[in-house]
Amino acid sequence: MLILMEQGATTEQIAKVCERVQEIGCTPHEIPGAIRTAIGITGNKGPLAPEAFHGLDGVAECVPVSKPYKLVSREVKPDATIVEVRGEKIGDGSMTVIAGPCSVESRDQIFRTAEAVAACGAKFLRGGAFKPRTSPYAFQGMKEEGLRLLEEVGREFDLRIVTEVKDTGTLDAVAEVADVLQIGARNMQNFSLLEAAGRLHKPILLKRGMSATLQELFMAAEYVLALRNYNVILCERGIRTFETMTRNTFDLSAVVMIKHHTHLPVIADPSHGVGIDWAVAPLAKAAIVAGADGVMVEVHPDPPNALSDGQQSLTFDGFKKLMGDLSDLATWQALHD
Amino acid sequence: MLILMEQGATTEQIAKVCERVQEIGCTPHEIPGAIRTAIGITGNKGPLAPEAFHGLDGVAECVPVSKPYKLVSREVKPDATIVEVRGEKIGDGSMTVIAGPCSVESRDQIFRTAEAVAACGAKFLRGGAFKPRTSPYAFQGMKEEGLRLLEEVGREFDLRIVTEVKDTGTLDAVAEVADVLQIGARNMQNFSLLEAAGRLHKPILLKRGMSATLQELFMAAEYVLALRNYNVILCERGIRTFETMTRNTFDLSAVVMIKHHTHLPVIADPSHGVGIDWAVAPLAKAAIVAGADGVMVEVHPDPPNALSDGQQSLTFDGFKKLMGDLSDLATWQALHD
Amino acid sequence: MLILMEQGATTEQIAKVCERVQEIGCTPHEIPGAIRTAIGITGNKGPLAPEAFHGLDGVAECVPVSKPYKLVSREVKPDATIVEVRGEKIGDGSMTVIAGPCSVESRDQIFRTAEAVAACGAKFLRGGAFKPRTSPYAFQGMKEEGLRLLEEVGREFDLRIVTEVKDTGTLDAVAEVADVLQIGARNMQNFSLLEAAGRLHKPILLKRGMSATLQELFMAAEYVLALRNYNVILCERGIRTFETMTRNTFDLSAVVMIKHHTHLPVIADPSHGVGIDWAVAPLAKAAIVAGADGVMVEVHPDPPNALSDGQQSLTFDGFKKLMGDLSDLATWQALHD
Amino acid sequence: MLILMEQGATTEQIAKVCERVQEIGCTPHEIPGAIRTAIGITGNKGPLAPEAFHGLDGVAECVPVSKPYKLVSREVKPDATIVEVRGEKIGDGSMTVIAGPCSVESRDQIFRTAEAVAACGAKFLRGGAFKPRTSPYAFQGMKEEGLRLLEEVGREFDLRIVTEVKDTGTLDAVAEVADVLQIGARNMQNFSLLEAAGRLHKPILLKRGMSATLQELFMAAEYVLALRNYNVILCERGIRTFETMTRNTFDLSAVVMIKHHTHLPVIADPSHGVGIDWAVAPLAKAAIVAGADGVMVEVHPDPPNALSDGQQSLTFDGFKKLMGDLSDLATWQALHD
Repeated sequence: MLILMEQGATTEQIAKVCERVQEIGCTPHEIPGAIRTAIGITGNKGPLAPEAFHGLDGVAECVPVSKPYKLVSREVKPDATIVEVRGEKIGDGSMTVIAGPCSVESRDQIFRTAEAVAACGAKFLRGGAFKPRTSPYAFQGMKEEGLRLLEEVGREFDLRIVTEVKDTGTLDAVAEVADVLQIGARNMQNFSLLEAAGRLHKPILLKRGMSATLQELFMAAEYVLALRNYNVILCERGIRTFETMTRNTFDLSAVVMIKHHTHLPVIADPSHGVGIDWAVAPLAKAAIVAGADGVMVEVHPDPPNALSDGQQSLTFDGFKKLMGDLSDLATWQALHD
Repeated sequence: MLILMEQGATTEQIAKVCERVQEIGCTPHEIPGAIRTAIGITGNKGPLAPEAFHGLDGVAECVPVSKPYKLVSREVKPDATIVEVRGEKIGDGSMTVIAGPCSVESRDQIFRTAEAVAACGAKFLRGGAFKPRTSPYAFQGMKEEGLRLLEEVGREFDLRIVTEVKDTGTLDAVAEVADVLQIGARNMQNFSLLEAAGRLHKPILLKRGMSATLQELFMAAEYVLALRNYNVILCERGIRTFETMTRNTFDLSAVVMIKHHTHLPVIADPSHGVGIDWAVAPLAKAAIVAGADGVMVEVHPDPPNALSDGQQSLTFDGFKKLMGDLSDLATWQALHD
Repeated sequence: MLILMEQGATTEQIAKVCERVQEIGCTPHEIPGAIRTAIGITGNKGPLAPEAFHGLDGVAECVPVSKPYKLVSREVKPDATIVEVRGEKIGDGSMTVIAGPCSVESRDQIFRTAEAVAACGAKFLRGGAFKPRTSPYAFQGMKEEGLRLLEEVGREFDLRIVTEVKDTGTLDAVAEVADVLQIGARNMQNFSLLEAAGRLHKPILLKRGMSATLQELFMAAEYVLALRNYNVILCERGIRTFETMTRNTFDLSAVVMIKHHTHLPVIADPSHGVGIDWAVAPLAKAAIVAGADGVMVEVHPDPPNALSDGQQSLTFDGFKKLMGDLSDLATWQALHD
Repeated sequence: MLILMEQGATTEQIAKVCERVQEIGCTPHEIPGAIRTAIGITGNKGPLAPEAFHGLDGVAECVPVSKPYKLVSREVKPDATIVEVRGEKIGDGSMTVIAGPCSVESRDQIFRTAEAVAACGAKFLRGGAFKPRTSPYAFQGMKEEGLRLLEEVGREFDLRIVTEVKDTGTLDAVAEVADVLQIGARNMQNFSLLEAAGRLHKPILLKRGMSATLQELFMAAEYVLALRNYNVILCERGIRTFETMTRNTFDLSAVVMIKHHTHLPVIADPSHGVGIDWAVAPLAKAAIVAGADGVMVEVHPDPPNALSDGQQSLTFDGFKKLMGDLSDLATWQALHD
């Protein structure tokens, strides 16, 4: 249930309502950003009786919430959430571009890439230092050394760092460097990691699991919001289907559904979504006109010799061309939405 | 294998090559539309020896074809196929819009819809007269009466009729009225129907099966092209995945793959792809910037009371707004592709 | 809705009820095989009022039917349907084995196989004469010549012939030879073919589509039962999943669900289900203890040189061993079910 | 690559080979349990030259390994691995039954269940203390208190405890009580957890992910074996498909594939596989005749009032009947395999 307070409700009135929620064994959540304050309730078994709150001062309305996801829902928080990362906003109607290599491979590689993406106007650099890999024998990333390079290169080119955290053991080290903590597709339902990362109150980029339904994605995000951390960005990166001509099936309708059903920003990752370099640009462009708040794309100085994901990485030239097109379309989209 | 003739090869030289192909037990296919003539070869078991053709006059090159689909492949025919339907071209870089109700329901319904979509600039009217339905007890369409209405309304508003043919028994009746024969998703691998429809040499709109891979779609189209009918338009209409928030999963990368791997035009059907009215427009717009040759959308005068697919049908107003946006984006796309 | 008549209800009383059903615009279906007569009603839009039948003589009870499939449902007909094929019963608790090659390839091949499977005790021979193939260039079967061979070999070894009908154009020819008409997975929702085949009142073996849900399978069978043809046998033959180590994913729970939710017999086809010769026997054995009424397996005199499906065909020796095991397990199962 | 030593090769000869492997930058793995010693090599990039080992004493043969999974492969270790758990063997040809509730709910519940399953002859008790749940608001298990109850009940009824570990933070606590550490489907690719659990050298029951391919399952197991822990039991528990009539699709062919391609024991979990109480027994029986080393089934004193998974739990009576049937079939299977 959601309790809507009257405009101008006082702090005391709100506190009173929260107390009552706790008295009946539930957890109150003040919902940020609305014109008037709303209080979400979680932890109840079965529906609550609105009568419990009717007598309290400042209460305007008690609204039942129909979905299993509550705090992520637009029903509960109609205003779009804007995640701010060192001065850059995601979800405010501007277009966010996160670009960089799959993995940090060397000083030279990450510096050259950072320079190129910054020159094209991107404000966010992606790059993995700890890589979860299907095979125990595959390249697992440069680890701590990779983090050091990310830290340095981010400062050098004023780029915000988006990098994956793959377990609780390395969370603190990654969080020192990351401006945005990426939780990968395989970890979407690693609830312990979600909780540990969520407690840091850093922005989290949560990737949809390879075969996850959107409701499961929303419930995973709910784990973070339930900790009162609203800095969550959802990411569509392709799902597993029978198709073999593409690496995954980029589910663009997910972008449309996320914007409709939740208040969280959404980033599209067509690089993983399709897995083929020449198909990234058309899908990135499509994501922007479908309403995505931005895109994440893989860029590499020398794709054929990348240690991972080379076949889906753009060259610097390809990225530059794409940035121009995205910028055009984002402008058009802002005028016509 | 593909035999490329020299520019200026004579009819006699081409005929000679075709004879030789038949002598070795295979079928020659002259490939239309290239600057110079190419001859595809099908029916061979295993690879052919190019030597069989080296001595023949006018032969420039013998190229092995690496894919199981041959005549639909860009490898074999690099030029895009343009399908002409009573003066309107599909696949020539213009944007095609096919609009109308799921089913013809009444004279009033189809006339009002046709008037509205024509007024917005669409040149193609969709509408089913024979409907394949999962349940034997569901509405199966107005059948012959529906065909009569389509014939009349098409003349009245100068719209080309796109309507589904569901079996060989009704093929002739449908083909009399249809400008484009639609083969539905459930019939994508109904090879007998593909062959019967293909022999009529009318344009065919072939929808991807609900769980078909793209290669299976291409092989299905190959059944028609093997009959020397190149008038095939492919259609992405969503595939079945685990997602339940949408009716199907609209696979936009299919559009990109079709344009890359085949020479056939591709139409996106976001109405079936997502199945929710408010999600149709963003996906239709996305399809255009991803390179689709056009879109097919469901439009109904009174969606809540439609006999089928009401929840995914646009109102007249919604369609009008969409047409403006698509036209903008198609213009942009033509300039930037 | 289902109307249960009293035991001993007269023919006139039953006829009266059927008349009343038609008066309200619906179709009555006398359900065969029950101790007392039941009358199913189809064609209604929305639920029916039981009051319409309360006054009629001989009516014991009016039961609402909760599922979209009606005549195939156990709710409507609790007795198991037994399909009789020239003296052999399928679904009566005995175990049915249908064996033979994927395709009829030659006189020698089909005669040798028939002899071998008959010697092992099988009463049904499978073999395709008309083969629907993904590629237009692949072997499409021996067609009419194949039918002639099946006719001859069936007589010679007293085997009932199970062979696929792939379209309405060849239905009559196939039906002349087939004791059981097989409708393949790709045609499960070819409703025109289902209706045409259903009207012949021959037994039909209906294979589950590659990505069909069980409800869709039941609805497809409903098309045949709605024509008052109850001679339908369902067949689980594997579904499409992400797994690539097997050809399909053999869904054994489908067998359990079919027996529970419908009254129709079910045959398991592990050959297509798994697609690997050495994996066929364990899955065939599993199907019997899970409650299947029988199995269909591919057997070939020389699997490595089969024109189709060689990799999933048993040798004669392999089949002989399997028959012994199945017979053991069927005996155990009959005692313990 | 795999190096097979001659029978009677000395410890020194083996050590020499291992040294050489390390010299070329790879990791040697002595493979346990074979008549003669084999040494697996991992960590190589690309294929190795067998010449590097030809001159060494005691080397019989160098065999290339064709699969990405190496140590789990039958190619590398033809002998079946037998996992011993406090005197009980899994994978030795006997049939293992792991039974108990989804979650430990109370002292009474777990003691009554343990008594019942032990009385029926089961040697392993399952029961979750830490439960990963899709929703942050759902029952997450009794946690430490649940572990205490499991410890006590295991001692009381001489049952080996199989319980899930859901993160590295609770691993040590769980491992103190668990005889077998269960890694759940959602954590199959939680490589950090696999490594942490693997290092404890306790038996691990690794469940297949909901949409994991078998190769991905094998690669996940490879993470544990690469730590020289061969005590891994694989578990098929159903995969996600389009079917909605069952909770998951129980993939019985996975059992057959695991036995063929790996040397690890396999347990079938039809309770999660199908999710419906009355369907568990037929699938459990099927798993045994298909070659599974055992089954894991959910049993609860009062299924309708279970806090989780009640709809798929057997009653004590149902379990007793099943145990009798499984024992019959396991005896038959042992004689006929």
